[in-house]
This record gives sequence, C-alpha cells and structure tokens, in this order.
Amino acid sequence: MTQKSFQDYYPEQTALCYGCGRLNEHGLQIKSYWQGDEAVCVFQPHPYHTAIPGYVYGGLIASLIDCHSTGTAAAAMYKAEGREMGTEPAFRFVTGSLHVDFLRPTPLDDPLEVRATVKEIKGRKVIVSCTLYAKGEACAKGEVVAVQMPSNFGI
Amino acid sequence: MTQKSFQDYYPEQTALCYGCGRLNEHGLQIKSYWQGDEAVCVFQPHPYHTAIPGYVYGGLIASLIDCHSTGTAAAAMYKAEGREMGTEPAFRFVTGSLHVDFLRPTPLDDPLEVRATVKEIKGRKVIVSCTLYAKGEACAKGEVVAVQMPSNFGI
Repeated sequence: MTQKSFQDYYPEQTALCYGCGRLNEHGLQIKSYWQGDEAVCVFQPHPYHTAIPGYVYGGLIASLIDCHSTGTAAAAMYKAEGREMGTEPAFRFVTGSLHVDFLRPTPLDDPLEVRATVKEIKGRKVIVSCTLYAKGEACAKGEVVAVQMPSNFGI
Repeated sequence: MTQKSFQDYYPEQTALCYGCGRLNEHGLQIKSYWQGDEAVCVFQPHPYHTAIPGYVYGGLIASLIDCHSTGTAAAAMYKAEGREMGTEPAFRFVTGSLHVDFLRPTPLDDPLEVRATVKEIKGRKVIVSCTLYAKGEACAKGEVVAVQMPSNFGI
C-alpha cells in the first residue's frame, strides 16, 4: 500500500490550491510526508520554472516552502492532538507570513527537496522552518507562520 | 507609442524568468511601470491560481512581489545613476530575501495591483517594499532585498 501524503487527506473543498491541491490539474500538486520529525517534500521543477537559464525562479521556491509548510502545520497539529490524519474535524492551515532567504542559485535540472521542522505550536498558529536542497546543497531557507483556517472558510 | 515596462528592457538572456521574463511563454510575464515614485504592476490571476475557491494562492502573491521588486530595483538603480533604462551595462537583480505578510484572503476574480516603493539603495542591494491590492483593499505586504546580479551570471 502506498503511503498517503499530507495533501491526500485534505478535504475536497480545500484541495484545489495551485501549490498543493491534488484536485488542481494546472498546479504543482506537491506531496509531503513525515520522515521522523521532519516533513519532506520532493518536487521536480519543469524546464520553464526558470529564473536565469539553468536555475529555478524564486517564486517556485517560495511556493514550495509555503505549501509544504501549511501541510506540515496540519500534520503536526494532528500529531499534537494524538489524532490520525483524515479524522474529523479536518485541520487546514493558511499562511500568515512567509519568509525566504535565498542562499545560492538553485539548479533546475534535479529534484528539489524541502525539509521542514515544526518550531512552535501556539494556539491556532504553527511556525514551520524549512530548508530547500538541490543536489544535496542547501539553496534556500524559509519560515512560515501558518494559521488554522476557520472550518467554514471557502465553503 | 506604448510605454515600455521595466521587463521589456531586460537583456534576452535574463528575460526567461517564469515570473517576469517576456520570453517565457509558460510564465506570468508581469509588467512593471513607474507611477511617480511608486512602481506598479497589475496582474490578472487565472482561475486556477486558486488557494481556497475564490481566493488567490499565496505562492502567486509571493511570486508577483518577488519579480516586481527585482524589476523595481533595476529601474531604481538606473534612476539613481541618472541613466535611461536599456543603456549598457544592463542592471538585473536577483532576490536575496523575500518576506510576505498575508493580511487577508485575496479575491481571485479581479486584477491584482502591486505597488512598490524603494526603501533603500545600499551598494549592490536595493530594499523594496510592496503592497498588493485587490478590489482596492490591501491584501498582502512584502519586502524584498534585491541584489545586483554579476554581469556574467547565467551567460
């Protein structure tokens, strides 16, 4: 049986996000999984996700960090409450703030790996720290303040 | 004669960015212009740029702020040196860091307007502050540290 990603548990009405919605056929459809205490997302950029030829444009890096972090926030909240993902009521997070430091140009040809750790859970907020790697080198660092979405939002 | 945008002056080898390259046929192809001391970019999101239905996903907002800010940084540097855009050597900036505060959900149906001001020019760095509006309401605020690209990068 294949392991389900965090995003596979999103309720249908919140699974349309361009970055992480499994139902958005135009989107990135990222998938995030626990590896121990880290949440990991691997994404293969398309050749047109370019900045300068050969390197990834910053907006994609920001998008991966953003959506991987909100997914990680949801998964962390289930874990903190000792609940299985997919149980009701569903957790879904939106981004309160996003910060990205671009450490070096990110090569475009290989898969990108975003590794996230949960820095803090505080009420309805989860702070997530990420590092994005390409070819094993850290190319960007990010921090997201994710905020639990009201259950009636967007419905 | 139609006014040329900042991005129309980018040298060909740096005009392939997914966010702002006029030569990237898959990309957003944003256009930025001076309006007095503010730089303005108007962008109509596609229906698939959704987060929750009816609202724009954060990665697009981050991308617009990022690319509009690096364009503004280049335009500001020409202005600071009293040079016309398009004169050699060309200025082109990459993003050192990006910060976005999401103030409220950003509606998807109307054009988004990003208004930028230059906060500081310091050597090869330009700090740009942005506000993103939808339906006349500020929905996100951003700050970008843009760094002048070495002239041989990506060539």
